[in-house]
Amino acid sequence: MRNIKLTIEYDGTDFCGWQIQVDDRTVQAEVERSLSMLTDSKVRLAAAGRTDSGVHALAQVASFKTESNLPLDVFVRGGNSRLPRDVRIVSAEEAPAGFSARYSAKSRLYRYVVAKKQKAIGRQYAWYYWNPLDVRKMNDACAAILGVRDFQSFCQAKADVDHYLCDVRYAFWRETKDDLVFEIRANRFLHNMVRILVGTMVEIGDNTLRSSSMPRILAAKDRSAAGATAPAHGLFLLDVEY
Amino acid sequence: MRNIKLTIEYDGTDFCGWQIQVDDRTVQAEVERSLSMLTDSKVRLAAAGRTDSGVHALAQVASFKTESNLPLDVFVRGGNSRLPRDVRIVSAEEAPAGFSARYSAKSRLYRYVVAKKQKAIGRQYAWYYWNPLDVRKMNDACAAILGVRDFQSFCQAKADVDHYLCDVRYAFWRETKDDLVFEIRANRFLHNMVRILVGTMVEIGDNTLRSSSMPRILAAKDRSAAGATAPAHGLFLLDVEY
Repeated sequence: MRNIKLTIEYDGTDFCGWQIQVDDRTVQAEVERSLSMLTDSKVRLAAAGRTDSGVHALAQVASFKTESNLPLDVFVRGGNSRLPRDVRIVSAEEAPAGFSARYSAKSRLYRYVVAKKQKAIGRQYAWYYWNPLDVRKMNDACAAILGVRDFQSFCQAKADVDHYLCDVRYAFWRETKDDLVFEIRANRFLHNMVRILVGTMVEIGDNTLRSSSMPRILAAKDRSAAGATAPAHGLFLLDVEY
Repeated sequence: MRNIKLTIEYDGTDFCGWQIQVDDRTVQAEVERSLSMLTDSKVRLAAAGRTDSGVHALAQVASFKTESNLPLDVFVRGGNSRLPRDVRIVSAEEAPAGFSARYSAKSRLYRYVVAKKQKAIGRQYAWYYWNPLDVRKMNDACAAILGVRDFQSFCQAKADVDHYLCDVRYAFWRETKDDLVFEIRANRFLHNMVRILVGTMVEIGDNTLRSSSMPRILAAKDRSAAGATAPAHGLFLLDVEY
């Protein structure tokens, strides 16, 4: 039995997220269908990040076990030839028997793009925010979330998890000519965590909230203490570390 | 009577080009409708480049005459609030009485993006070409089209023009990590000229045609002497000089 590790890019605009669902178009369903046709057997994928509806990925990682003897590059080319244009298999590698794209991941890196001006080209890939934002204050807020913290306040209610502890290794906003770009790496992410963090930090950046309020919001362990959930289409899964 | 100069950005994916047509969705129709509502009078636009179906613009320029007393920033904000998300008015300026976005233009700059690898994110904005391309040869071909030349071989048949002379001031391919980017500036462009130039130079880049064949193709004054027409979705109107 081979264990194959795939890197997958997708434009989340027209997908109801990664995870397979009965009636909706999902990335997992498309890739499983393509690889099942290719290998003439049922392919079942495990993924590093179960991205929500509308969220993009530049390098999602997924793995599957197969009896197929196809060369690795055939998983890429043959898989892509059977996939719609908004999802592409970027690469395929052999993985050790015990490898799982989901459970072997040490950390995930997400990017969120806030556009400073309205744009037509690329509007699918950034959240346009109309007020000026103070990036220095947003980075002050980032400092308060580094390390192992309880992120219950940044988790969509009724999440099916044992605990809310996440180890945030990196969190930083940088400003480009047209955008503010947030990147965050952590061992795990809770449901909507990046989008609630972004929504909260944007409220800090436009002075609706103080940058010093982050520790209080964390301590509340209550979703209603944090800011709004930023829209899905600014979010990208960028990298998974193993 | 005021004369207003607009800079307009649009994603050409879902438009049947710039120019107004009876049954199709066009950029001109959307912007005229928006500004006519805003000014409560019939607005008629003249544009620098009548881009084809599927072609994008980062800075199309259009002008219109109006009796409206609205401040310039209201044309931008009020226009955009009445426009679909795939077209944005970037700026509005007062122009002299004799100014026409179409007839006063001294030159236009177009960009064409060829993607070296398939991508899901941004696939709407580049033509994926599967074979390796020799950029050096493509730039040799560029040298042959500089200056005033007859571009009948690079014009879609039955074009309604007096002559085929264009003055090409700049034409160059540069290579980035993921793309080959062609930019060309000329006083005027014939119908499909950039896309036929790109299609021809791509055939030179993958050795289907010799780079030395450009003078022969120009001399033929016959569309069938040139290469294929590259797809619309890699093309952007980038700048208009006045």
